[in-house]
Amino acid sequence: MRVLIVNPNTTEAVTSLMLDAGRASASPGVEVRAITAPRGLPYITNRAEAQIGGAIALEMLAEAQGTYDAAVLAAFGDPGLFGARELFEVPVIGISEAAMLTACMLGGRFLIVTFASMLCGWFRDCVAMHRLEDRCAGVVALDQGFGSLEDVRETNWEALVELANAAIAERDADVAILAGAPLAGLASRARDLICVPVIDPIVAAVKQAEALVALGTTKASRGSFKRPAPKASSGLSVKLAAYLEDAQ
Amino acid sequence: MRVLIVNPNTTEAVTSLMLDAGRASASPGVEVRAITAPRGLPYITNRAEAQIGGAIALEMLAEAQGTYDAAVLAAFGDPGLFGARELFEVPVIGISEAAMLTACMLGGRFLIVTFASMLCGWFRDCVAMHRLEDRCAGVVALDQGFGSLEDVRETNWEALVELANAAIAERDADVAILAGAPLAGLASRARDLICVPVIDPIVAAVKQAEALVALGTTKASRGSFKRPAPKASSGLSVKLAAYLEDAQ
Amino acid sequence: MRVLIVNPNTTEAVTSLMLDAGRASASPGVEVRAITAPRGLPYITNRAEAQIGGAIALEMLAEAQGTYDAAVLAAFGDPGLFGARELFEVPVIGISEAAMLTACMLGGRFLIVTFASMLCGWFRDCVAMHRLEDRCAGVVALDQGFGSLEDVRETNWEALVELANAAIAERDADVAILAGAPLAGLASRARDLICVPVIDPIVAAVKQAEALVALGTTKASRGSFKRPAPKASSGLSVKLAAYLEDAQ
Amino acid sequence: MRVLIVNPNTTEAVTSLMLDAGRASASPGVEVRAITAPRGLPYITNRAEAQIGGAIALEMLAEAQGTYDAAVLAAFGDPGLFGARELFEVPVIGISEAAMLTACMLGGRFLIVTFASMLCGWFRDCVAMHRLEDRCAGVVALDQGFGSLEDVRETNWEALVELANAAIAERDADVAILAGAPLAGLASRARDLICVPVIDPIVAAVKQAEALVALGTTKASRGSFKRPAPKASSGLSVKLAAYLEDAQ
Amino acid sequence: MRVLIVNPNTTEAVTSLMLDAGRASASPGVEVRAITAPRGLPYITNRAEAQIGGAIALEMLAEAQGTYDAAVLAAFGDPGLFGARELFEVPVIGISEAAMLTACMLGGRFLIVTFASMLCGWFRDCVAMHRLEDRCAGVVALDQGFGSLEDVRETNWEALVELANAAIAERDADVAILAGAPLAGLASRARDLICVPVIDPIVAAVKQAEALVALGTTKASRGSFKRPAPKASSGLSVKLAAYLEDAQ
Amino acid sequence: MRVLIVNPNTTEAVTSLMLDAGRASASPGVEVRAITAPRGLPYITNRAEAQIGGAIALEMLAEAQGTYDAAVLAAFGDPGLFGARELFEVPVIGISEAAMLTACMLGGRFLIVTFASMLCGWFRDCVAMHRLEDRCAGVVALDQGFGSLEDVRETNWEALVELANAAIAERDADVAILAGAPLAGLASRARDLICVPVIDPIVAAVKQAEALVALGTTKASRGSFKRPAPKASSGLSVKLAAYLEDAQ
Repeated sequence: MRVLIVNPNTTEAVTSLMLDAGRASASPGVEVRAITAPRGLPYITNRAEAQIGGAIALEMLAEAQGTYDAAVLAAFGDPGLFGARELFEVPVIGISEAAMLTACMLGGRFLIVTFASMLCGWFRDCVAMHRLEDRCAGVVALDQGFGSLEDVRETNWEALVELANAAIAERDADVAILAGAPLAGLASRARDLICVPVIDPIVAAVKQAEALVALGTTKASRGSFKRPAPKASSGLSVKLAAYLEDAQ
Repeated sequence: MRVLIVNPNTTEAVTSLMLDAGRASASPGVEVRAITAPRGLPYITNRAEAQIGGAIALEMLAEAQGTYDAAVLAAFGDPGLFGARELFEVPVIGISEAAMLTACMLGGRFLIVTFASMLCGWFRDCVAMHRLEDRCAGVVALDQGFGSLEDVRETNWEALVELANAAIAERDADVAILAGAPLAGLASRARDLICVPVIDPIVAAVKQAEALVALGTTKASRGSFKRPAPKASSGLSVKLAAYLEDAQ
Repeated sequence: MRVLIVNPNTTEAVTSLMLDAGRASASPGVEVRAITAPRGLPYITNRAEAQIGGAIALEMLAEAQGTYDAAVLAAFGDPGLFGARELFEVPVIGISEAAMLTACMLGGRFLIVTFASMLCGWFRDCVAMHRLEDRCAGVVALDQGFGSLEDVRETNWEALVELANAAIAERDADVAILAGAPLAGLASRARDLICVPVIDPIVAAVKQAEALVALGTTKASRGSFKRPAPKASSGLSVKLAAYLEDAQ
Repeated sequence: MRVLIVNPNTTEAVTSLMLDAGRASASPGVEVRAITAPRGLPYITNRAEAQIGGAIALEMLAEAQGTYDAAVLAAFGDPGLFGARELFEVPVIGISEAAMLTACMLGGRFLIVTFASMLCGWFRDCVAMHRLEDRCAGVVALDQGFGSLEDVRETNWEALVELANAAIAERDADVAILAGAPLAGLASRARDLICVPVIDPIVAAVKQAEALVALGTTKASRGSFKRPAPKASSGLSVKLAAYLEDAQ
Repeated sequence: MRVLIVNPNTTEAVTSLMLDAGRASASPGVEVRAITAPRGLPYITNRAEAQIGGAIALEMLAEAQGTYDAAVLAAFGDPGLFGARELFEVPVIGISEAAMLTACMLGGRFLIVTFASMLCGWFRDCVAMHRLEDRCAGVVALDQGFGSLEDVRETNWEALVELANAAIAERDADVAILAGAPLAGLASRARDLICVPVIDPIVAAVKQAEALVALGTTKASRGSFKRPAPKASSGLSVKLAAYLEDAQ
Repeated sequence: MRVLIVNPNTTEAVTSLMLDAGRASASPGVEVRAITAPRGLPYITNRAEAQIGGAIALEMLAEAQGTYDAAVLAAFGDPGLFGARELFEVPVIGISEAAMLTACMLGGRFLIVTFASMLCGWFRDCVAMHRLEDRCAGVVALDQGFGSLEDVRETNWEALVELANAAIAERDADVAILAGAPLAGLASRARDLICVPVIDPIVAAVKQAEALVALGTTKASRGSFKRPAPKASSGLSVKLAAYLEDAQ
């Protein structure tokens, strides 16, 4: 089984972090690869960038088509997810949805914890998009902008843990999600520090990709997630245009 | 006041229909113009195409920036709307939201009527995105694919009216929305045929653009809809990249 | 086009404020008039008074019938709105619904800010009546009773602005509504002081009245908002009784 | 204990039906009386008439003040209920809410069955006003207008039972409510005919009045249901005006 | 009329408190009895214990079958309630649902106040189970474990009243429910101390039992709350097994 | 990794079916075992039996404690799930929740299809318990009772497939769940027959058990899902009583 992690951002260092975390948790026989957006933003932090990054993710998925059995859309916020799910024949899983749905099996309500307050609005939209607001105890963030990976992962780590524990107590959350690709791989470090189960979205997504492939489901042949009819376009990336126009 | 209708599809004939309908309803002193997507799909009919078309809409808005006081995002489903609202300084109104919010002032629950069943899933997502499900009596469509403008506007017109009246009776809807850009301008023709008030989304959107400009509100300087911080990108359209990178 | 502002309170000074604000924002060719309740309460501040004032609003609308193309029901809380919408042939818009629906086009969630805490319960009911709770970030008020117009508009102005900004930050609101007829016309003064777009309900309502008339919709001929069948009554105001009994 | 049934309609024959049904179910020592609206509509059938009738109900409650320990607002739809609850010192129970809340103790979801389709829209609003939509399996009605009491209670009885049973099966309802004052007292006749428990709203309301008095609760001294501050008015009924102006 | 209070806990002292409170509020001619669980937990404080205690409640109801006309399931959280409602021919009322539904007739939103924080999660699940979250202003508890009856009723009484008043003010609650069997009978003591109406769940439940019996409804003969078909089992209590296997 | 399938019913043939399906989908190195309830009902089909069976499941989990790294609660409806999640240190997954949450990653809304109409009410409660109603397109069943395994799996198979396809078309469902333990293993047979992805709950649950163990989360040390404090009981199964009383 081949799982492809699709980073719709252009920052390869983040792709590496996610690939390491994903590989470490894969079952025997599961090959995990990762690709980085060839164009776009260094990191997606709002709805406008998610609109752009999600379209680029579709290009990446079309380009790599045939080389994976399931894809992980690897930006918290799940840009382009539902479009990808319509378009492609294999399962596509968003790291937000994987984290949230997995969290639902560990308690009643999950808390989303992230490192920069500018992300909160967009992440809340993501919770609503998945209709999981009744299971969400809130989205909380450090009162900071988006700094270096070093800042996010090391300098502010203690503050993040403290924020998580305070919000869990105040909101009666049962599970915590460390949200945002730059936090990939840190959940295990949080285990003895945060008082409820902690989810690493990229790990959750790789395991969900395994689950969906194991279920052996087939693409819908009718309804709103069947593959759209072939259609000509203009000015799109060559591979995406070819895929959209392809007889199926 | 200058209102710009942005058609994120590449079909100019549809732009013309919308421009005519929009101009006919504009108040004295309001100048209405329209632009057509320079690349993309001839018509957006699903979530994947909305992801692409919405990103193109951002390019168009950046390109035309400074030439309008309010913009109308003119594809039912509102592709790219929230991103555009974050990014630009002037009001951006989606034709779906304008139709639905206006309909709310004419009764309890609105019905969305469209001409091709493939659109229903995406349109329902749009209702949910605006959190208006409690005001929506349903999305119904002719059991057909997406044909020519002639098909949509003339050949199937009687069937559409019949569908609307049947669904209104069955679902106790109070208002009907004729959804889909190709239906622009037909609401007035439906007036004596459909038993509840009928909304033309493009007309609703032009009037809402007027309302927002008249209110004289200013762009948020904090919160999740303030303009994002300047950011470098790669491989995006020149004007959009420049706008994203612009010091504000 | 003739828009009638109906103040269901007996305080003419408030009518004047609203008429001024409404006229200032009307499009060319739109005539705005206002009437004050001939009986009832000086200002409606709770559910009981809204029950009474809403019934008086129906009398006023019946009395003025034929002199307006759209009516604005001008008390925040929208007393009598749905009844008026059933009964009369022309659009009737509530200032609460106009403010809230317009706010929805400027961001995700709106905050309602008012000047006396006794109003909060009734205003929250109004949000629920319009099924807009998912778009509402809360109703907040100064911890005060209902004082003079001078108090509301001048003395407590700075406290109100401060309250708004604090609540916007705490609740991540995207838009603010200055709620309550005595605040009519003050939104423009708030523009540089409050960090998100600010809505003046009376202005929103006049613009929405314009929009609805421009849409040229007709009264429902079936369903729950069609005009009720003629019915005899006793002891009601002469004009309202005549209107209720009228063959249509 | 004295329970007052307040019929906000002017039809005394309906008051009699309700008084009979209410008295038959009262506990020993509970005195049940009923009053009929001295002005207004013969029967309330829509939102506009509910606005008027609810204001008249407040007048009736003020007029009778001191002669009852709990009041039953006896029109399905609960016109004026929340206003009455704010204003008066003793419990006021609506027959809709009493029926619905009682039904909740007999199963998961209740069906509202009534005799004239024009009532459905208003009754649905009433379900929403009480936030009980998740417990409601629907509002269904005979496809008829509002005829004589004889029509409602005798001629159409079999059709009503048939409608109820069909809707229960189709919607998986667990309890049925016979809604509308003219159906008072018929639930017992339905017992062997309808396949789930059947609620008579007036009986439910009288028993709930007993329950609230037995609980011995006191009026709120703060919050949105405390008694409003004294206020002068003009042109209202003498007793209501006096009550509103009364020092407490 | 015979009302049976079923305490699914093994603590007889709590049964006594509830029996006293229930009897004191019963109407003339209503005989109230109470039984204590013969096995199980001294007090149910979480979901696991509610699963166990609810199954024991079914045994108790089967054992006592024929000796009561309505049963009150007397642990806040309503363990086993919906199962009991399916299984038995007479009304079964939970003290949580009775308290919450009764509270709905005294204001918009109720607050649940209890004495030990460990109860909050389970009680919130109970609110959701009854679909009353829109009517609930929250569940608050003293920051304590579950002590002696003396602790709960006397030592911590003032702290509980203080907590209630603070939460009412902060959350704009209209009614308060003193939740948890050990608080039985204390609502009357709270009357002059808490600023909104206060509900005693056991009293509410006894009055609701009276109401349901007075309504004279019959058991559903179809749908999801009709009595299940007879079924053999193994290893269950003798009387419950016999009841499950009984031809009806 | 050791996964324990816990069948809270007494029918070993159903346990075998589930064990086969579970084993077939397990990853290399995952050992799957299954146990059958030593007492209780042959099959749980309603809320009352779920109350009983859920308590028995807790006994089984306590009895087997130490022999598994994750447990699958293997009756659709998830009897006792939240209690088990509180009580035990390792992940416990319900087959309903696993099926529904997994389905969410394959489309917008799932359909639950089962073989006996008596199950629908209880299964709907289960959807609500997990707060997934916005993702559920409905619960549908053959209009039949609970027959033999042969009936369920062979005789009625074509009718079940036909029902599923009809309901998918009518309700616009994106994914189908074959619900009920007796259907274990049939999803693969449905693949070419049903027009959307089909989920086998037991397979989904085994894969989710793998995912949760791989995530390496730890038990909550605070909040509503931490392990309850030790407590003495009487008359419970020896092992469960010992576990409840155990110092941790």
